[in-house]
Amino acid sequence: MNYPNGKKGIKNTSEVPSQDSPKYSKIQYGKRGMNFEEEIDKSNQYYRLENVAVIHKKPTPIQIVDVDYPKRQKAVIKEAYFRKPSTTDYNGVYNGYYIDFEAKETKNKTSFPLNNIHDHQVVHMKQVSSQKGVCFLLIKFSYHDSVFLLPFRNFMVYWDRYKSGGKKSITLKEIESDGFAIPIQFRPRINYIQIVDQLIKTESEALK
Amino acid sequence: MNYPNGKKGIKNTSEVPSQDSPKYSKIQYGKRGMNFEEEIDKSNQYYRLENVAVIHKKPTPIQIVDVDYPKRQKAVIKEAYFRKPSTTDYNGVYNGYYIDFEAKETKNKTSFPLNNIHDHQVVHMKQVSSQKGVCFLLIKFSYHDSVFLLPFRNFMVYWDRYKSGGKKSITLKEIESDGFAIPIQFRPRINYIQIVDQLIKTESEALK
Repeated sequence: MNYPNGKKGIKNTSEVPSQDSPKYSKIQYGKRGMNFEEEIDKSNQYYRLENVAVIHKKPTPIQIVDVDYPKRQKAVIKEAYFRKPSTTDYNGVYNGYYIDFEAKETKNKTSFPLNNIHDHQVVHMKQVSSQKGVCFLLIKFSYHDSVFLLPFRNFMVYWDRYKSGGKKSITLKEIESDGFAIPIQFRPRINYIQIVDQLIKTESEALK
Repeated sequence: MNYPNGKKGIKNTSEVPSQDSPKYSKIQYGKRGMNFEEEIDKSNQYYRLENVAVIHKKPTPIQIVDVDYPKRQKAVIKEAYFRKPSTTDYNGVYNGYYIDFEAKETKNKTSFPLNNIHDHQVVHMKQVSSQKGVCFLLIKFSYHDSVFLLPFRNFMVYWDRYKSGGKKSITLKEIESDGFAIPIQFRPRINYIQIVDQLIKTESEALK
């Protein structure tokens, strides 16, 4: 299992606070009640406030069918449907590098089922990789409360195995071997940028 | 006015077609009926298919209030509201560079009104710039059918003038002088990546 040694220095900047900052002080950093998406969102909020990285979750795509425009009031969507996202959920920029990832949580104890990932997301991640973006999956095993960063390149080995009729999942052991354990901390809770920073340093030849 | 001289070679790749490709052949490349957003979306679709860049429009953020889950049917959103986006509308990756921009169209003949841009979008673009992202505005003057790329750094001069009590708009002449005219072509219609490529070459010191 890969654990990070390097520590990224967090700059203390007095930059313009982001629009999220009023909520910032109200964040509860305990584990209680926070799901994986919220943990990542709070970590991204921390990264923005500390000027470490600018990464956002994309809004859920909605197909709007009917909108009502009442007089003197704001528009009300009366009929709409959820659409499948055509990309991954998260993207942004870290120190000049394009960051793109999908985050998934599983209750499974020993493996990550690959039907959690859609074909079109894999196509998107392939495109991103060919444009030299930093692309990966964040996988949480909720039973063990452990989170891994699996680089897209390593993920593809298991995806190809699956698509050629093999195992429909990646075992936890495989993820431990091919991925990186994310430090779970107080703030930010899911410090994945620490691992991204390492990845960039070791793969800088391939990225630039 | 800055016109590009360099031409970016478009690679002919046989990569996996994006999910949008079935629609691709149906695209009408004439001007009729296509608004600025559609023109940009089609250009981005072209860039993805030709493996030039991976840039998407973010979905419109929606605040969902009520969802109905009919038996054996997909969920129906019965009440929802439009939310203000917390970022710009477009982002993605081009050859390892993070690309982030807002696109606005004006019917005004001689100036671009700055109330088209929100404070939180400027904050976002500041954050992106400090992370060495390539950040700009695409501005279309529909009356003249002309489109300009205005780098964020140049935009900020006029934004600061506006916020300190000055002019509430940027004149077309100022945009012609501080921005770059985008070549309007057959395919892709809004070839902004050609200008981005130039920008990166001239500003490579600042970006890396």
